[in-house]
Amino acid sequence: MNENLHELKTRLAEISDLRAASSLAHWDQATYMPAGGVEARGRQISTLNRLAHEKFIEPRVGKLLESLRELEQSTPFEDDTTSLIRVTRREWEKAVRVPAAFEAKMSDHFAQIYQAWTIARPKNDFASVAPLLEKTLDLSRELASFFPHQHIADPLIDFSDEAMTVGVLRPLFTELKNQLVPLVEAIAKKPETDQSCLRRKYLKGEQIAFANTLATHIGYDWNRGRNDMTHHPFMTKFSLGDVRITNRAQENDISDALFGTLHETGHALYEQGINPAFESTPLANGTSSGVHESQSRLWENLVGRSRGFWEIFFPQIQAAFPEQLKIVSLDEYYRAINKVERSLVRTDADEVTYNLHVMIRFELEVQMLKGALSIKDLPDAWRAMYREYLGIEPHDDSCGVLQDVHWFAGTIGGAFQGYTLGNILSAQFYNCALQSNPQIASDLSRGEYSSLLGWLRENIYQHGAKFTAPELIERVTGGPLSIAPYMEYLNGKYSALYGL
Amino acid sequence: MNENLHELKTRLAEISDLRAASSLAHWDQATYMPAGGVEARGRQISTLNRLAHEKFIEPRVGKLLESLRELEQSTPFEDDTTSLIRVTRREWEKAVRVPAAFEAKMSDHFAQIYQAWTIARPKNDFASVAPLLEKTLDLSRELASFFPHQHIADPLIDFSDEAMTVGVLRPLFTELKNQLVPLVEAIAKKPETDQSCLRRKYLKGEQIAFANTLATHIGYDWNRGRNDMTHHPFMTKFSLGDVRITNRAQENDISDALFGTLHETGHALYEQGINPAFESTPLANGTSSGVHESQSRLWENLVGRSRGFWEIFFPQIQAAFPEQLKIVSLDEYYRAINKVERSLVRTDADEVTYNLHVMIRFELEVQMLKGALSIKDLPDAWRAMYREYLGIEPHDDSCGVLQDVHWFAGTIGGAFQGYTLGNILSAQFYNCALQSNPQIASDLSRGEYSSLLGWLRENIYQHGAKFTAPELIERVTGGPLSIAPYMEYLNGKYSALYGL
Repeated sequence: MNENLHELKTRLAEISDLRAASSLAHWDQATYMPAGGVEARGRQISTLNRLAHEKFIEPRVGKLLESLRELEQSTPFEDDTTSLIRVTRREWEKAVRVPAAFEAKMSDHFAQIYQAWTIARPKNDFASVAPLLEKTLDLSRELASFFPHQHIADPLIDFSDEAMTVGVLRPLFTELKNQLVPLVEAIAKKPETDQSCLRRKYLKGEQIAFANTLATHIGYDWNRGRNDMTHHPFMTKFSLGDVRITNRAQENDISDALFGTLHETGHALYEQGINPAFESTPLANGTSSGVHESQSRLWENLVGRSRGFWEIFFPQIQAAFPEQLKIVSLDEYYRAINKVERSLVRTDADEVTYNLHVMIRFELEVQMLKGALSIKDLPDAWRAMYREYLGIEPHDDSCGVLQDVHWFAGTIGGAFQGYTLGNILSAQFYNCALQSNPQIASDLSRGEYSSLLGWLRENIYQHGAKFTAPELIERVTGGPLSIAPYMEYLNGKYSALYGL
Repeated sequence: MNENLHELKTRLAEISDLRAASSLAHWDQATYMPAGGVEARGRQISTLNRLAHEKFIEPRVGKLLESLRELEQSTPFEDDTTSLIRVTRREWEKAVRVPAAFEAKMSDHFAQIYQAWTIARPKNDFASVAPLLEKTLDLSRELASFFPHQHIADPLIDFSDEAMTVGVLRPLFTELKNQLVPLVEAIAKKPETDQSCLRRKYLKGEQIAFANTLATHIGYDWNRGRNDMTHHPFMTKFSLGDVRITNRAQENDISDALFGTLHETGHALYEQGINPAFESTPLANGTSSGVHESQSRLWENLVGRSRGFWEIFFPQIQAAFPEQLKIVSLDEYYRAINKVERSLVRTDADEVTYNLHVMIRFELEVQMLKGALSIKDLPDAWRAMYREYLGIEPHDDSCGVLQDVHWFAGTIGGAFQGYTLGNILSAQFYNCALQSNPQIASDLSRGEYSSLLGWLRENIYQHGAKFTAPELIERVTGGPLSIAPYMEYLNGKYSALYGL
């Protein structure tokens, strides 16, 4: 192997090891760590992240990348090595633009505002965090200013959804909003769905056991992962051989455990499907927040909330919970898990209203960043947008502007668009899979998920971060990002469910 | 604070964070990690250890230590800062003597021989690892040669039991052997103890639950720790606020769970008792392998296998396991948990024979290092010493020279003496506690362990690594290391048990 390429890979593996250690420290904190470990653990994670960053921005890495330019240009775009050099160079060029002192200042500030938020949120006390949020906004703008951009939000979006911009997203989101708002209004006029069958008493251990069988059925590899309890479920990865999910369960609502597990399993299937040859390089990751979310939503919603899925599994869940479900029909159950409701809290939202919550936040971010909205006016703007998008408004800030952790632990800008991109892409990719291979639809109707998983692995998962989201969408679907398949999916499913 | 002292502490905290990450990675590997994570995890742990080592041996650390010499010499020996500088300097001076290339070569070799051993041991195939063990011996000698020494084994002993030497240990161990061999022979002439009450079917979960109540009673702080299942139990620490134990259980032998948990809890009580001001410095550790083992053995044996302890807890264990223990008397139970038996496997050995196993290994290490025993003659020498020390010999190498991991994952030399030092010291410290505070004995008889724990914290635990073992022994007991209290304890206890 080219000596410089070898050195680059060795350095990248070391950085990957530090990041894996940081992820493990976070996983442990969120699952098993005793309370006494909190203080030291915060410092340990921050040290590991800082060292990984320091190792990555070393000038030697830039020199190695420079020396590999010829090799990169003489081989095809899709080539693994070419892609590794290209993707690493792009990440390196971003990383070195941010001064280390600024990085440290920002991370100190995020720790501070996060602490303040954990106190302010239950007390409904926006005023106490407003000055800190002003500083977050200043820092977010300053961070963006280190990068060339058309819109000040673009560099922040680019961190999690590379190559996506306000210019692309805003018209798309406006169109999506224009189609969703009337759909939600039409559903709201229909009788409310009865969800009581989900809200009976289900023992937590039994919920998890059943949810785990669903993960197994759709293809989660337990030899390369596990599922542990936590407060806010997430997927994490320590290597391509160790991709873990986490879950929670509520004794009086089985949907959290079921769909939370399917959601995290979707993320995990993506990571478990990455080409093993990419191990410990920047290619061994999902390519963007949006594409990652497309896979969690595809498995959670397009598969996991479909009637076909429960035609297979409803008899099984009924057998597992006979007391709770014996007099419930498949149809009642299917309606219950797909209830649409205008609510105030994003994380509780259904498929149809979810994107409205997200797009409100995206729009507010854009307005704050460009200076059209001040922090002091944010709670009012929040309420006004909830009226406009969802026809309801929060009675206080706890379930309003204070509800999400994102602005209180990171930048304003770039935090939310991935959720809606994921929903849009989930339908675009799923459609494409069904169209490319007719066998998939018939397999799904028999409860056989391996042909769908195989198609996703072949077309999306194996590539890891080799292609950006726009590159990948083009390669997979032959066209650009489009909301049409997603709206077609929602209109079809919910017209039938609600008799529109 | 002195600016250089501040910088030194900042650097030490970073190194401590890397070591904590490595310990966490190891804990996870031994408890929850799925099989698919093995390969990457090995590399991650090795990266973290290497980075911690690189950060520690930086010349800047030496310069800072040099600049602090005056501060160190102008303050009392016991002062926290003085001790931090003194202990750090001693560790740094050791660490920089070993060339990085040698360190890497050695760690590659240890990984290789460990792999070979995992295959050779079940196949009873000493020949296949003998050439690798030759190399271990060469590397061990080379490692020792980087340090000034009287005996070639001294530097290797010093790594885990600082300031202990062959010159001190060998006469002590000879004397101990001379007293133990006749004791074991006398016991062997008595009727065999019936252990069947421990060997009934006990559900694993119930064993652990009961063992955990014992840990609670003797003072384990669950807010700063937890207990998880593993194959080879150990104690580990990620900060002074997160000191974890691990355990295992056998369905047909409750003693593993009970005494394993007490043993690891003893280690953990030491670490949980260290002065919190030492957090993330080299002082925030137990001071030596021997002193650490003294605490695990004190709680496991002197407390946990005493008649007084079970006068309190036998009614409780009987209530927890009525089926298994209803017709058993306290005396039968007490005899069962203290059965003395000449056996071939160190880890299964009782209090009386255990040190004979250890001293055989220590003596073999010393002979190999000084060139008086070759690897090819090792299995024969092993058998000969078992005949001499224990009057029995292994029928094959699996339960002979291949039984312990130590020589197959680290140096020959320094691996074993800590176990016997721990046993000796456990009695020396325990005696001292009982003599200094008469309240302790009366508290123990009532099942009240806090006065003993308080004394140990005050006199031993809080100091962490501030004093070397010889310094600590002198401070605590007013004299040097001595086998007298230990032999008095064994003779008293076992004469009564076996009617000698």
